[in-house]
Amino acid sequence: MPATTKFLLDEKDLPKDWYNIVADLPTPLPPPLHPGTKQPLGPDDLAPLFPKSLILQEVSVERTIEIPEPVREVFRLWRPSPLYRARRLEKALDTPAHIYYKYEGVSPAGSHKPNTAVPQAWYNAQAGVKKLTTETGAGQWGCSLAFAGSLFNLDITVFQVRVSYDQKPYRRALMETYGAQCLPSPSSSTRSGLAILEKNPNHLGSLGIAISEAVEVAALHEDTKYALGSVLNHVMLHQTIVGQETIRQFELAGEDPDIVIACAGGGSNFAGMAFPFLGMQLRGGANSKKRRVIAAEPVGCPSLTRGKYAYDFGDTAHLTPLVKMHTLGSTFMPAGFHAGGLRYHGMSPLVSHLKELNLIEARAYHQTACFEAGVLFARHEGIVPAPEANHAVKAAMDEALRCKYEGRTEVIVFNLSGHGHFDMTAYQNYLSGKLVDQEYDQDELQTALRGLPSVE
Amino acid sequence: MPATTKFLLDEKDLPKDWYNIVADLPTPLPPPLHPGTKQPLGPDDLAPLFPKSLILQEVSVERTIEIPEPVREVFRLWRPSPLYRARRLEKALDTPAHIYYKYEGVSPAGSHKPNTAVPQAWYNAQAGVKKLTTETGAGQWGCSLAFAGSLFNLDITVFQVRVSYDQKPYRRALMETYGAQCLPSPSSSTRSGLAILEKNPNHLGSLGIAISEAVEVAALHEDTKYALGSVLNHVMLHQTIVGQETIRQFELAGEDPDIVIACAGGGSNFAGMAFPFLGMQLRGGANSKKRRVIAAEPVGCPSLTRGKYAYDFGDTAHLTPLVKMHTLGSTFMPAGFHAGGLRYHGMSPLVSHLKELNLIEARAYHQTACFEAGVLFARHEGIVPAPEANHAVKAAMDEALRCKYEGRTEVIVFNLSGHGHFDMTAYQNYLSGKLVDQEYDQDELQTALRGLPSVE
Repeated sequence: MPATTKFLLDEKDLPKDWYNIVADLPTPLPPPLHPGTKQPLGPDDLAPLFPKSLILQEVSVERTIEIPEPVREVFRLWRPSPLYRARRLEKALDTPAHIYYKYEGVSPAGSHKPNTAVPQAWYNAQAGVKKLTTETGAGQWGCSLAFAGSLFNLDITVFQVRVSYDQKPYRRALMETYGAQCLPSPSSSTRSGLAILEKNPNHLGSLGIAISEAVEVAALHEDTKYALGSVLNHVMLHQTIVGQETIRQFELAGEDPDIVIACAGGGSNFAGMAFPFLGMQLRGGANSKKRRVIAAEPVGCPSLTRGKYAYDFGDTAHLTPLVKMHTLGSTFMPAGFHAGGLRYHGMSPLVSHLKELNLIEARAYHQTACFEAGVLFARHEGIVPAPEANHAVKAAMDEALRCKYEGRTEVIVFNLSGHGHFDMTAYQNYLSGKLVDQEYDQDELQTALRGLPSVE
Repeated sequence: MPATTKFLLDEKDLPKDWYNIVADLPTPLPPPLHPGTKQPLGPDDLAPLFPKSLILQEVSVERTIEIPEPVREVFRLWRPSPLYRARRLEKALDTPAHIYYKYEGVSPAGSHKPNTAVPQAWYNAQAGVKKLTTETGAGQWGCSLAFAGSLFNLDITVFQVRVSYDQKPYRRALMETYGAQCLPSPSSSTRSGLAILEKNPNHLGSLGIAISEAVEVAALHEDTKYALGSVLNHVMLHQTIVGQETIRQFELAGEDPDIVIACAGGGSNFAGMAFPFLGMQLRGGANSKKRRVIAAEPVGCPSLTRGKYAYDFGDTAHLTPLVKMHTLGSTFMPAGFHAGGLRYHGMSPLVSHLKELNLIEARAYHQTACFEAGVLFARHEGIVPAPEANHAVKAAMDEALRCKYEGRTEVIVFNLSGHGHFDMTAYQNYLSGKLVDQEYDQDELQTALRGLPSVE
């Protein structure tokens, strides 16, 4: 009998509820604050941007929230996603560790992002919303919301960071194939975009700017809401389907991970994988063993490892609420690197809170080391990971090599959050030796951190 | 209980044998001929190009050939692949037909091609071969052989049709990520390439030319063999894993297809889906009902619908054996269209033979109609099909609409042979109205057909 390569769940094993880690936190999450009054935000303050159903999820303290059946119906197009045992990689590394990866690249958009795009689109459609705006960097999120919008007849407008808009036309084409409109940000169609362009007509854009533009459009139109692909509590919530499936798949595998790994930009694919495991630990009882939970981020945008845990804006134009998170400052411009999905100045407040509670670890990697890991992975496991996911691959390989030197058989799982088929230019640059590891500007970081808003 | 969306098989249900339709043919396949003597080819004639194991498969009349366990071990990275019921598409078309699709885009290279790349690489590695050469058009095949080569430590050199080499750098980057070398064809590294370049230094290349280059390099070096991604009997054989899985998945679905559809360029994804169904019919007994089996090809390169059934060369430089097939003539240059995998002047001799026996139908589509079908499919089913696969999508939609007008509930299945994530430029051209339907040159076709070799 050959060794099993992948662990599949039946459609009937698709989780019926999302898991809300807020219910199990040992200390409560600091509340979001109104950007003007700096007082805790009420649900009404978010009403211009989100439908009531999602606002209730954002502030919910219930442990489980039911996944609506029409959302599960769409999930069945690609979920449950497979869990793989990376036997070829283990052999290549000559490690006693058991390496597993959960593969989210099987979604139609090629990443984990549809896990939240679909429910966000559905809840908005239910609320009578006609149009959603959003921002995107490399385009994984924009493509996912475009896909979800096409299923529920929502108009989708995506503000894409200009440097990615110009460099990655394939993801833009995917958004348009799904029927969405994609604009380069900063754009001339918003006040916040125009303000940036007046100072610098060739501005390359940033996620913070694109968020400002998308929020501005949503706030100005009655039938238009805003959707965010990461950072917020309800987005983390939606992604927990990933970790829940993984836990069931480990039951099939007859193992239990000692180390849980994901990359972290805004925190959503990390939360999706990690929160259900952390929840078992926080609740105690069966399966509550302490596991190491590791977030891997880029050196060029190291919010968890070098940022300050402080209240900050989610965007550059300061239109969003203030949230307490690990931040590099909302004016921070990350160094140039290819993992566009990790180029965000902040971090999910929930992930940040868990880091402050020492429930998770974080580490930062240079991109060439990540691409080296990704290429090794591709040549043994076949799948070419997205540049973002390469950070998780690198962290998993590091831990597997530590196991080798220590002679320990530990079980490692990481979230392979998307495939790299839209990122082959980055691979080509790596293979031809053109990829460099850029440091962010230390002075700029200090300036950005000094600019953090003062809160009482 | 919600309606099932996809039908999955366990790894233990991975087929153990390939199905060889040669064993069930009502009349024998005309033999390949030596290009010089025009006498039937002996196995030794192929020895410079292929290892003995693959030559034996090429000429085998056994009904089943065992899939080696190391090959099945690799297949488990993505196989069995899912069969989907396209409920959203059915609803959008308002058809009583039941539409199913087998999705081969889940392979690491994104198409069905690894189904034969992996065994070809393995058999060559077993025979002590160090290096494989091949040709590729759009790059699906080149990427797949590069992937397979990386698993079995084979050096892979891919001659890519120059127009695709220049227009689709992402697929080239994927080949290089897997460690392969990719050269634009015509190249200056072979005699056949140089001969073309001398006449026209800016020649855009063709599959026929690239085959000549790859065959030439393999024939000249002891440790180097050649691999072909379609046309040959052993390639059709390897793809039958697709149809075998589909038959088992229909048992799970409790249905049985009336119409089986695939696109056809060289014929391999068509054969993979169709041959196991045709085999049941040819053998008689249980499940032997007559099903309509439809090959969908491009108007710009219509070998099955407009070609001549005659002996012809597989390549432009006339280095390959002569095989009896539907051909447009080895000098025919297809019209410009985006489905690079369908731009071949010939057709699998097995598929051609079945066409002559009236066991299959063929139809040709213009590319804009195919992209229109592909976009509709993407907006309802999520998956963006490769341009080649859009021909199958179009044929399936046409049949589903016929069912609607006739008020018939027929069961349709098609092979969704790959995803279009590397082909988004083509989608963008379609969406922006830049895509045109080009006709091939009628005079050129007549000239190419007049140039067919005379065989007694």
